[in-house]
Amino acid sequence: MKPHNDFLEALRWDSNGLIPVIAQDHQSNDVLMVAWMNREALALTVAENRAVYWSRSRQKLWRKGEESGHVQQVHEIRLDCDEDVLILKIEQVGGIACHTGRRSCFYRKLIDGQWQSVEAVIKDPSDIYQ
Amino acid sequence: MKPHNDFLEALRWDSNGLIPVIAQDHQSNDVLMVAWMNREALALTVAENRAVYWSRSRQKLWRKGEESGHVQQVHEIRLDCDEDVLILKIEQVGGIACHTGRRSCFYRKLIDGQWQSVEAVIKDPSDIYQ
Repeated sequence: MKPHNDFLEALRWDSNGLIPVIAQDHQSNDVLMVAWMNREALALTVAENRAVYWSRSRQKLWRKGEESGHVQQVHEIRLDCDEDVLILKIEQVGGIACHTGRRSCFYRKLIDGQWQSVEAVIKDPSDIYQ
Repeated sequence: MKPHNDFLEALRWDSNGLIPVIAQDHQSNDVLMVAWMNREALALTVAENRAVYWSRSRQKLWRKGEESGHVQQVHEIRLDCDEDVLILKIEQVGGIACHTGRRSCFYRKLIDGQWQSVEAVIKDPSDIYQ
């Protein structure tokens, strides 16, 4: 009996047992990144109050910030009407969510038919991942 | 030759030829919904300056608001570092994005281990879809 984890059952996990998660700054509401969780990742996120994702490329749990120090502290978790997307409202430690060293992964904007970078690199990735 | 549609080639379409799209209010930054686009939907979105999605359930183009009147006027389009998620910054006509009659699809919040509705229904769905 784990009644405290019943919220996991309400979700429509995809065929790989995953759900997409939008990480949104809890103050500015800026979307910082999108990643994926499996059941264990979401249970750990709730238990530890920090974002824990499932890395599809590495096929393992990914405690956001484990290498970079750019931990995401969770303020709120939201679910959509189709039960197949989550939002984490988070506080981004270090102010950098993207592996490129930018604040947000959504740093390119469509301008005159081209994707143009409109956000500065705050920290060189080689200084983040050592 | 369609050089004005080169931006479609930069994206990593999934095995079904789709990409997830976050619709975000251009002023409040609130995330209103997540839907999907194929190449045609995105090309039409850019050409018409209003959100056109691909309905996975109906397997056809879905001009958001075609039934409800709740059109989404596009102010900005963003792309993430992995080229596999888009953000549309939009103006939500009618102030209702969700088919439940709520402003946002993300109306449930995890509170004490349960998903609880924290946003009011603005308009009865039976009055929206006639």
